[in-house]
Amino acid sequence: MSTSCTILETHPRRAPDNLTAVLAQCLDACRDCAQSCTQCADACLSEPSVDQLAVCIAVNLDCADVCAVTANVNARLTGFDSELAKAMLAGCAVACRVCGAECERHAAHHQHCKACADQCRDCEQACRDLIAALG
Amino acid sequence: MSTSCTILETHPRRAPDNLTAVLAQCLDACRDCAQSCTQCADACLSEPSVDQLAVCIAVNLDCADVCAVTANVNARLTGFDSELAKAMLAGCAVACRVCGAECERHAAHHQHCKACADQCRDCEQACRDLIAALG
Amino acid sequence: MSTSCTILETHPRRAPDNLTAVLAQCLDACRDCAQSCTQCADACLSEPSVDQLAVCIAVNLDCADVCAVTANVNARLTGFDSELAKAMLAGCAVACRVCGAECERHAAHHQHCKACADQCRDCEQACRDLIAALG
Amino acid sequence: MSTSCTILETHPRRAPDNLTAVLAQCLDACRDCAQSCTQCADACLSEPSVDQLAVCIAVNLDCADVCAVTANVNARLTGFDSELAKAMLAGCAVACRVCGAECERHAAHHQHCKACADQCRDCEQACRDLIAALG
Repeated sequence: MSTSCTILETHPRRAPDNLTAVLAQCLDACRDCAQSCTQCADACLSEPSVDQLAVCIAVNLDCADVCAVTANVNARLTGFDSELAKAMLAGCAVACRVCGAECERHAAHHQHCKACADQCRDCEQACRDLIAALG
Repeated sequence: MSTSCTILETHPRRAPDNLTAVLAQCLDACRDCAQSCTQCADACLSEPSVDQLAVCIAVNLDCADVCAVTANVNARLTGFDSELAKAMLAGCAVACRVCGAECERHAAHHQHCKACADQCRDCEQACRDLIAALG
Repeated sequence: MSTSCTILETHPRRAPDNLTAVLAQCLDACRDCAQSCTQCADACLSEPSVDQLAVCIAVNLDCADVCAVTANVNARLTGFDSELAKAMLAGCAVACRVCGAECERHAAHHQHCKACADQCRDCEQACRDLIAALG
Repeated sequence: MSTSCTILETHPRRAPDNLTAVLAQCLDACRDCAQSCTQCADACLSEPSVDQLAVCIAVNLDCADVCAVTANVNARLTGFDSELAKAMLAGCAVACRVCGAECERHAAHHQHCKACADQCRDCEQACRDLIAALG
């Protein structure tokens, strides 16, 4: 079981089981994606072709920031505000789409961009799934 | 001149002057608000009536996170994506509204909540102004 | 293989295999701990005995912040500065020790504190292992 | 009066006046520096000579992260741990020294690097002043 899930299951405001599963998956996806984007930005910075990767680095940094905070906001069940949660998830889905598309453009040349594009796609989907589950 | 403004004016992708002013004001408002919310959350934690401030602390933490990242995303002019910028500004306006309303409820008893509510209101307005300026 | 590891292995400045393994373990430990601490702080905020958990919440927030940034700094191999890396790892080990000890005090009553104390201990050790590996 | 100061002065654990002044100055310096470094990294990414600025970008990102978190940790007076505070301030002073030196190397060509180097120097000094004041 993931760390997200362990703590969610011991939280005094435990959500219904089906929502908890979707939430835990989204938290994990956001955190994995934040991590991939932080590391992909840095790997791009070390590429000899860094001048062609400037936009990729910038959108990686955006996506890393947005994913990390979207996870934090959705992990806070005290004072949970559904409108805020969904606004952040919507923003995160945009960040993942933008970053995933840019990483994909470089995926043939850089394996870190390929790996990161995959994480962005997973995270975008996980955000959309949680938006749907929140109703 | 604020730090945000100084660097914006030396950025190779300098925006038109009128947009730069609205952007700099929003960046400063987001950063001031992030700071107020971080400190208000901690001040609440030290209040004898902390048990009545749990939601206030949680929404302060959300608002601090969202404001900080909204500033970062909007400060990155390389690969600037208008849809992402506006989605984050919209999320930030929600976070500020939720946090400002909660802090206002405690403003009569806690000066830090009063100060923080004021910052949240300013930041919400600055986000809406930048959304309008981005068109 | 963890996400950290996948990207580290495709980074143009790939470290020697033995260092990469210790580094990946530390990155994962820092990120898991950041996540646990963020969620434990929120779970504490929802406990009826929140007035006895104020310090626990505050040190959880510190530890979450420090772990997340220690991971970021150590994940950036471009311009890697060994003195900075070790200073942050040392700070992170302190944050984990302080937070782990406080969470442990509440572990008998709150499972989230127990789970979080375990993560803090693992992360403190992973930081010390990476300090040793960096020489 | 700065935002940091306003909230510090209304905090239930208000520190002695002389320490509060040094602390507020350090919080403001850390936050200004985090902001400068975030924006300088992005300005560097948009420079035609980005391939010569890769290390500068990476150390700017490190410094931005470390400064932001050092401010957060030192702003949290609930459960304040002097050892952790000083460890983070020491790490922040290193980050500012490394980033300031790298930005200085590019200061003649890029005004954003010049402005950022100045902020790094101020922040390094503010961190050392607070370490001294904490005893």
